[in-house]
Amino acid sequence: MRILLAAALALLMTACAQRGTGDLGLVVERADGRLMVVETSGSTRLAGIDGLGDLSHAALVYSRDERYAFVFGRDGGLTKVDLLSASIVGRVMQSGNSIGGAISQDGSLVAVANYTPGGIKVFDSRTLAQVADIPALGADGKASKVIGIADLPGKRFIYTLYDAGEIWIADLADLQAPRLTKFTNIGKLPYDALVTGDGRWYLAGLFGEDGIALLDLWNTDQGVRRILDHYGKGQEALPVYKMPHLRGWAAAGDEVWLPAIGHHQVLVVDKGKWTEKTRIDVAGQPVFAMARPDGRQVWVNFALPDYSKVQVIDTQTKRVIKTLEPGLAILHMEFTPRGERVWLSARDSDKVVVYDTETLEQVAEMPAVKPSGIFFTNRAHKTGL
Amino acid sequence: MRILLAAALALLMTACAQRGTGDLGLVVERADGRLMVVETSGSTRLAGIDGLGDLSHAALVYSRDERYAFVFGRDGGLTKVDLLSASIVGRVMQSGNSIGGAISQDGSLVAVANYTPGGIKVFDSRTLAQVADIPALGADGKASKVIGIADLPGKRFIYTLYDAGEIWIADLADLQAPRLTKFTNIGKLPYDALVTGDGRWYLAGLFGEDGIALLDLWNTDQGVRRILDHYGKGQEALPVYKMPHLRGWAAAGDEVWLPAIGHHQVLVVDKGKWTEKTRIDVAGQPVFAMARPDGRQVWVNFALPDYSKVQVIDTQTKRVIKTLEPGLAILHMEFTPRGERVWLSARDSDKVVVYDTETLEQVAEMPAVKPSGIFFTNRAHKTGL
Repeated sequence: MRILLAAALALLMTACAQRGTGDLGLVVERADGRLMVVETSGSTRLAGIDGLGDLSHAALVYSRDERYAFVFGRDGGLTKVDLLSASIVGRVMQSGNSIGGAISQDGSLVAVANYTPGGIKVFDSRTLAQVADIPALGADGKASKVIGIADLPGKRFIYTLYDAGEIWIADLADLQAPRLTKFTNIGKLPYDALVTGDGRWYLAGLFGEDGIALLDLWNTDQGVRRILDHYGKGQEALPVYKMPHLRGWAAAGDEVWLPAIGHHQVLVVDKGKWTEKTRIDVAGQPVFAMARPDGRQVWVNFALPDYSKVQVIDTQTKRVIKTLEPGLAILHMEFTPRGERVWLSARDSDKVVVYDTETLEQVAEMPAVKPSGIFFTNRAHKTGL
Repeated sequence: MRILLAAALALLMTACAQRGTGDLGLVVERADGRLMVVETSGSTRLAGIDGLGDLSHAALVYSRDERYAFVFGRDGGLTKVDLLSASIVGRVMQSGNSIGGAISQDGSLVAVANYTPGGIKVFDSRTLAQVADIPALGADGKASKVIGIADLPGKRFIYTLYDAGEIWIADLADLQAPRLTKFTNIGKLPYDALVTGDGRWYLAGLFGEDGIALLDLWNTDQGVRRILDHYGKGQEALPVYKMPHLRGWAAAGDEVWLPAIGHHQVLVVDKGKWTEKTRIDVAGQPVFAMARPDGRQVWVNFALPDYSKVQVIDTQTKRVIKTLEPGLAILHMEFTPRGERVWLSARDSDKVVVYDTETLEQVAEMPAVKPSGIFFTNRAHKTGL
């Protein structure tokens, strides 16, 4: 009996080991429907969580205590995982096809943007009970895919209707009667969007036109305006091998850095005037252009066939200071909260590599099965992530 | 025996209850040498931690996992507390008198700035073993008080020498041989300083002169320059009842908001040009001017005799939109990570009050014994906090 007791206690001690959650993260192992729980203080893998379903193009957001993640799967699954126990604590099949979601400022609501059948569904973040279902019927009366969803202050979410070419804001202060604000005719095929870190500017990239739709969220009465119109004009557009990801758009000081669709260039845009300041030649079609948290570097990865390269740009001199080849098929990059390191997914090398952002040298790596997205818990504290 | 076992298990389950640490914080109960552990999801007090010594003017920083805090006491004590177990896990008396410290970007080093005997001491964040002791002898050969310490990228700390009028950067990459970079003759009596959130600009307020010393940390070869020279010129300076706190200086978009020493005004400074854009009349001598995380509001508290008022300024219209009286002697304010709420210490009302930043209404309060500083764990992820 005494031995049993000791064993039970030891087991319990292990199972409930306390730890802080500020240095945790998740890496998507897409092919296996699995998440790796990692920690960034020692750059190690802590555990795996299986059973997430189809994780191709999966995204996730964190609860405000940095303990739980809400994972949006391509199969329409919304899964709540606990990083401390490395387990699934809730899962609902909410639609046929989802590519992203957001969590409200106060952490109480999780909204999922859907391709099929379109629209958003909103869930209680504690229980995953559905609390709202908002179809996306454009001005043309047809159902539209929803993309580019992000949280706004209050219980509000903003998103684009891809087919209809609209931006909507859903205010869920009253769950019984969500209030919608619609901006129509914003441009053709808004394919992704972002909110700047200060929550003020919403930028929607247009796949059907050569420009970006901009909404000043502090002055929504001024409506949507077009910026960077015809930024690719006069150049022959290249076939687009992979759509750039706009959440990766980087704000560094008073500049926004963004991948130029189809071009081997990154655009530097004046934040405020919203005009192009310059463009920088890079090694391929950029997918993510991400600023180190202090804004002093922008890291860029690429579409096929250049997707095993990563370039580091100095934001002051606007020069590429290093071209790295960290592994095969670099799909995603994530900086540690204060930026001393960056983690990179090398899908076809089946590993995650960690670089020191000052020396630009590799400092750690760990095996991972076909890794894609990397998400650290400090996203919990940020608007639009 | 079975009852004993059940009791032991129940006790253990309680003692080691897991929880995330992203929504935690500490409130200083200065008179009692005690910290309150709080959580911001439900706005409640979780526990108390006694035995911290002299906590008047205490400051603290967080470990990168958001589990531990390092508390800098006025008695020279450096105390490491565990928020999860609500207990002290280490304490050293490191000097005679400390008023602040910082934690390195990678979380491995904690530096303490000292009044007496001056200089900084650096400790291993795991063990609190001292790893470096750097006196602060100015160009005049005399020991100087050290103020305004902050972390910089790499294992570097920046601080001012109050008596000597200098700014130093200590690089601790090699603990055996710390490398010092000194900027002399920066102005008289730098009394506090801050690093902007992007880690680029270091601003030191001068008590002995009417202006601010500015260092561009991306271009330190350009040296220190003076900005806002004679910003109080032509006006009769009022007696200063309480020194403004510069860590509260607010960056909102491309503007920096700062309290004008001795004047009933807040200055709005163009970030980049570093010239005054405008100044806003407020209800008293400002102490903290803090931006809501999205930069849309700046909250200001005041020195005696107006220290029971708080004013909220709209950063777009530059107007005071509300004057609040949340309690007696409002010493500190802290926003929740994404800014939906702000916590205020009402020292002479013996309570902490919580406001909704959208409605500007009180939404919660809790008793606290002479509360002063409030610190939420998301500071762990920020440079300069």
